[in-house]
Parts: sequence; structure tokens; C-alpha cells
Amino acid sequence: MLSLAEIQRRIETGELSPDAGIAQSLEAIEARENDVRAFVCHAKGAKAQRQGPLRGIAVGIKDIIDTADFPTEMGSPIYRGWQPRADAPVVMMLKRAGATIIGKTTTTAFASRDPTPTLNPHNAGHTPGGSSAGSAAAVAAGMIPLALGTQTGGSVIRPAAYCGVAAIKPSFRLLPTVGVKCFSWALDTVGLFGAGVDDVARGLFAMTGRGEFSQIVAATSPRIGIVTQDFAGPVEPAAEQALNTAIKAAERAGAGVQIVDLPEMVREAWRIHPVIQDFEAHRALAWEFSERHDEIAPMLRAGLDETVGLTPKDYDDARRIGRRGRKELAEVFEGVDVLLTYSAPGTAPKGLSSTGNPRYNRLWTLMGTPCVNVPVQKVDGLPVGVQVIARFGNDAGALAAARFLENALAKSK
Amino acid sequence: MLSLAEIQRRIETGELSPDAGIAQSLEAIEARENDVRAFVCHAKGAKAQRQGPLRGIAVGIKDIIDTADFPTEMGSPIYRGWQPRADAPVVMMLKRAGATIIGKTTTTAFASRDPTPTLNPHNAGHTPGGSSAGSAAAVAAGMIPLALGTQTGGSVIRPAAYCGVAAIKPSFRLLPTVGVKCFSWALDTVGLFGAGVDDVARGLFAMTGRGEFSQIVAATSPRIGIVTQDFAGPVEPAAEQALNTAIKAAERAGAGVQIVDLPEMVREAWRIHPVIQDFEAHRALAWEFSERHDEIAPMLRAGLDETVGLTPKDYDDARRIGRRGRKELAEVFEGVDVLLTYSAPGTAPKGLSSTGNPRYNRLWTLMGTPCVNVPVQKVDGLPVGVQVIARFGNDAGALAAARFLENALAKSK
Repeated sequence: MLSLAEIQRRIETGELSPDAGIAQSLEAIEARENDVRAFVCHAKGAKAQRQGPLRGIAVGIKDIIDTADFPTEMGSPIYRGWQPRADAPVVMMLKRAGATIIGKTTTTAFASRDPTPTLNPHNAGHTPGGSSAGSAAAVAAGMIPLALGTQTGGSVIRPAAYCGVAAIKPSFRLLPTVGVKCFSWALDTVGLFGAGVDDVARGLFAMTGRGEFSQIVAATSPRIGIVTQDFAGPVEPAAEQALNTAIKAAERAGAGVQIVDLPEMVREAWRIHPVIQDFEAHRALAWEFSERHDEIAPMLRAGLDETVGLTPKDYDDARRIGRRGRKELAEVFEGVDVLLTYSAPGTAPKGLSSTGNPRYNRLWTLMGTPCVNVPVQKVDGLPVGVQVIARFGNDAGALAAARFLENALAKSK
Repeated sequence: MLSLAEIQRRIETGELSPDAGIAQSLEAIEARENDVRAFVCHAKGAKAQRQGPLRGIAVGIKDIIDTADFPTEMGSPIYRGWQPRADAPVVMMLKRAGATIIGKTTTTAFASRDPTPTLNPHNAGHTPGGSSAGSAAAVAAGMIPLALGTQTGGSVIRPAAYCGVAAIKPSFRLLPTVGVKCFSWALDTVGLFGAGVDDVARGLFAMTGRGEFSQIVAATSPRIGIVTQDFAGPVEPAAEQALNTAIKAAERAGAGVQIVDLPEMVREAWRIHPVIQDFEAHRALAWEFSERHDEIAPMLRAGLDETVGLTPKDYDDARRIGRRGRKELAEVFEGVDVLLTYSAPGTAPKGLSSTGNPRYNRLWTLMGTPCVNVPVQKVDGLPVGVQVIARFGNDAGALAAARFLENALAKSK
């Protein structure tokens, strides 16, 4: 994989020119794209900028995020060839930091469940996950050092885990969703993919200019609460194995580890996430549903057809539970620095008929907490990760604990 | 003015056909538009729908709200001729309720401060207010019975007051802002304009399907807290006179009226509103600011140039104050049902060089509370209104108290 931190270092020392940084991504895309199919389109003649911390960094943008220089097709024939006028704010944040937008990465239709043509770089017979399929796969295949995705259920952390890359879903609204096709305004969250935790931290720092991300170093002896999310159903042995590996490595490296039970209202929040998501999706996609129903991808269409009866009362009740869940979850973080749980039910499922299941992710999207995927190991040639979760607003803490775990895992190998 | 409630009644009884309902708006536009200039464009051949509570109702949509059948130009040459693919959710809510979208109403550039060509229907030498200038003026001129606008500072309640129409800025996020050009995602709120309070209540009921809006009747003996917002600076005699008229009418009609002092953190929230607004505007309009700077309207451009140095810390501090302000304001509503305050500093200012001042509105946008403008009287031929404010989520209560006040004022004339 291409490490953003390493490219930055080489550009700063003069070992690599910004143009050569972009050229190596273009060459990697040339070499790997036919096998991975991560891009909807890319700029073969892309050039580096001269200034900014991300000069020489080629970035892929999920194709539900508006770009002035590329069509934005939402993974749907309804938007084939659609050309926005403006770049979304998150794209402008990257460009102002010196990045080169190299192309648009595949997305499931409207960031829902219908699979993309993208293949898992570790095994072409398996899904890369979704909905940010192309962004996860492009980073995993070593084509680009940074990519943007979005998560409404589990669309950043899950594909990152399946593809074996680091990713952060930041606190809700840390990054604006303006210019991002909406599925659920209370849930949609823009996230970053990179080779390692330091790489996504550097991307987040360059985008936001927030001082708290300027020097993310590994946390010292973090207090880690283990959450099994039993309410979300059983995991596969690979996921269990990865969590145990992570726990052992963390303990050996000096972390305080304890099992944490989530309060009742947080468990309830997991249950009602789909109510909020689907009620809002019916409004966000009202025009597509009414005017272009037959052109909506089949799994999404069936899901919308099933949930057409959700009422404002269902929605209000669900939001109330969400608010109470967030309040009760805040108390959990009085006893631990971060939570640690599964990133996905197992390794990437075989075949391309499913993008996997977001059931270990959706609670945290609703809670608005920062989540970082840390790759742990491979099982049968496919990556498995765990997610590190901090309290709302403590993205720096989530990244520091994730770096701690990443280091601990590297030492224990 | 055209009353939505009256048109609904006549259509239900068969006195008026839905097509005749639309035709009367088209005739009124033909007769008045040259003098008012409220529309960017309208559909001369518009037809009624056959079904739905808003059949026969012609609606104007502020031109920062996406429409599939009309260009959406944002009041800016940067978006001249810009044609969105989809209708915004709020537009679809209207269409699904049977409304006919008759055209797009003028907006200041990106819903900021630079005046539109629209004239005040009560006196063409005065501004109609902004930023939702066309929506307020089109309803006031009797061209349409319902219009949508948006408020980030005071862009719904202020033009409604200046034009002498009823309007509601609902609770934050009651209506989705998806497909609405963003200025500030923490503040932008979609609102409705109508001839009277019952008309906007019926519009809101038809759009949302929420039972709490189905039969808004006047509140009985509401407890009203008077708020002078002295921290926002002095008012003109016309505004003072209107508030006193409203208080007297309310007392005579049986309301309990008391002066309310706002807690310190609420007053602070008034102060920091511009920090949140401008920090977010720099992100929301990043592409326009970087790529089309010279084409941004001059007052907005100057404002953005001045606020380019706002830092994440300024923003985080301001948001913290906003959160604490909302919490302290909630306690104020334990003692009163609604608050009553000025809708604007006075009558519509003379000339078209300014759209007036949102200083009595911006606090309530940040607080996310429902606000209803109730026209009170005319001073020197120009309307003055007051605003009724309820706690967050109690839009039905705000409307019921506003109906009470509307009745009380009608009786006292």
C-alpha cells in the first residue's frame, strides 16, 4: 500500500517530487485497476499541486460526493453523466490542502446495499464490502494513499476491515456532508481510508486544520472497554479470533482491558437505527422513488418499498431513543478511554451478491462517535479488523488509541 | 391575499375547481408581477393535480431550493441556468400533497444579504426584506397562497413581517434541508409563508402528514412571556408600537402576560450566532469562494473576506455556547407557553440597498425553536409584525398561540 505519511516524508526531504507522487498512483492504477475495478473514472493526466501538506497525494472520492471536474453518478443510472457545478466542501478541503483529486471511486447505488463491480484486492472472489467499495479497494490495492467514503450504517468501517486498510468515521458533522448525496441526514458521515492509522490522521489534519490532529502519537496504557454487541447477533470465528488477538496484544502492551456492558438505551438505539435511516431515506430520495422508481437498484428499491409505511411517530420515537442512547453512552466513557469491538461479522463474504453486513457498525453511526478500523490479521487470506471507538468529539483520542493498538499488533507478530 | 384555507374549503365544496385555483394564481401573477418582481421564473401553463389536500394550490419555491422542472439559480450568476436533476424533498412533499409548483421566487445571492430586484407590495419604494424576498412578496401581493423560504439568520420571519404575511420557521430539521443550497448546516431552516396562521399550519400539515398539525385551533389563555432582546440593540417606534398592540390585544383576550429575562447563556448565544454561520459558510461555499470569488455578490463577498480567519476553536467555543443556550432556554419554557418578541427592528427600510436587519431573529434560528410571524398593524402604510416562539419541537403550540394572537388582534380592531 501507499503510505500517505511516507510520501509526505519523502516529499519534504526532496526524495520524491509532488509530480512523482501523483505519477506513482497513476502507474499503480494502470497496473491494478483492471483487476480491482475501484474507479468509476479517473484523470489520466492528473498533476500535482506545488503547495500544501497533501501535495503529491492522489485522492479518490466516493462517487456520491460532488466534484466539479468529474461526473458524480451516485452508482445509479438515474445520475449517469451527471455533472455537479461545484466541489463538495470535503473535496475543497483536500484541494486547498494541496491534494490531487485523481478520480471517483465506486459506490453502491445511493450508498445503499446493491453491490458494485469492485473486487476485493486480497481475493477477487470476495466482495470488498460496501457502500464505499471503491475507496477501500483502491487504497488496499496500493493505487492511492487516501480516499473519502461515507457511512450511514457501516459503509466506511466494514469495507476497510474487509480490505485490510485503516479508516476513520469521524464524529458526526466533524466533516460537512454538504454536496454529498443524502441518504439519512442524521446518520450520513464522511470518512477517510488510508494504509495505516497515522495516514488517516494526517489526512484529517490536512483537511480540517484542527490542532488536535497535528501530532497523533500512540496512547500510553489506554483503558479499553471490550464490547461484544451480542444484541447484534453472532460473529464468525474469524472476527472472534481478531478481537482476541487485539485484546492480547493490547494487554501485553500495557492497556487496561475490561469487558463493558452497554446500557439498555444504547442497545435499544442499535435496534431503532434502521427506523431513522429508512424514514429519512424516504424523504431524501423522494424524487427518485416517485419519479424514477424502476431505475432504482433492486435491493435498495425493495428496501424502500418495504419501509414506505414508517410514520412520523415511529421516527420521533426512534430519535428519542437515539438521544437517550447518546446520553447513556457518554457515561460509559467515564470509565474507559475507548471501546473496542468487531468491525464486521467476519472476513469479506464470498461472491459479489452481498456487500456484507453493517450490524456491528450501525449503532456507532447513530451514536455519532468516532470509529477507527485497525487491521488485525488475515484469516484464510482475507483481512479482519477491529474498531476503536471514542466518545463523541474525541476523534484524536480514537486515533491515538488506534495507533497504540496498531503498534501493539505489529510487536506481537 | 389568497388564503390557502379558503381555497381548500371552496375546492372541497365544489365551488372552485383545482384548475381554477391554479388559474387564479396565474392571473394574479400576470396582473402583479411587473410591479413586484417576486419570481425568477414561473410556469405560465401550470395545471392542477387532481388529488391531495393541496390540489389547486399554487406554490412558489425560493430559488436556492432544487427543482427538477425549473432552473435553480441561487440568486447568483455562478448558477445561471443551473438545472438540478431532482426536486428537493420539501418540493416533493408539496407535490405529493397535490400542490402545483408555479415557479421559483427571488432570493438574495446564496440567501445572504445582497438585495434582489423584488419590491415591497405595500410600497414599491421599500425593500420586501430578505433573503426569502420573492416568497414573502408573492404571497403578500396575492399572487400565490403558499411559498417556501429559508432562514439562517432572519430570512423567513423578517420578510414576512415587512410584507405583512404569516410565516413559520419550524423547529430545526422538522423539514429536511436536503437539496437546499447550504449556507450554514447548523442553522439553515426551511419555512412557509401564507396569508394567515391557519394557512401556513395547513401547508405544514399537508407537507409533513404530522397529526399534531391537523387541526390547529387558537390556544386558550396562553401564558406569554415578553422578550425585548435588549442585547440586540434598540428598536424603532413602529416595532415598539406593534409589540404593545399585540400585548394589549392578548391580555384583553385572556392571555397571561409577563416580562421574561433571558438567561445569560441565551444572550451569549445571540452574540456568537455569526461565528457559527460564517465558519460554516466558508466551508459550504468553499468552491464558490476559491473558484468564482469575483462573481460572488459584493456584500456576501465582503462578509466572507472579513471572516476568513475564523478558527475551529472559535467555532467549537461558539457551538458550546449554543448548546448551553438551548439547554437554558428550555428552562424558560417551563414558566410560559410561548415567548413574544419583535419580528424586525421596524417597518421595511426605505430603498433597495438593504434587506433590513435580522438581529431579532438570529438567536431563535440558533436555538432551533419554532417562530411564527403574526402581522399586527400598518405604520405609515407598511406592515409590522411580532413573532411567537415556542420551545423546540412544539411547532403546534407556536401555531396555536399565533392563532390566538391573530384572533385577539382581529377583535381589537
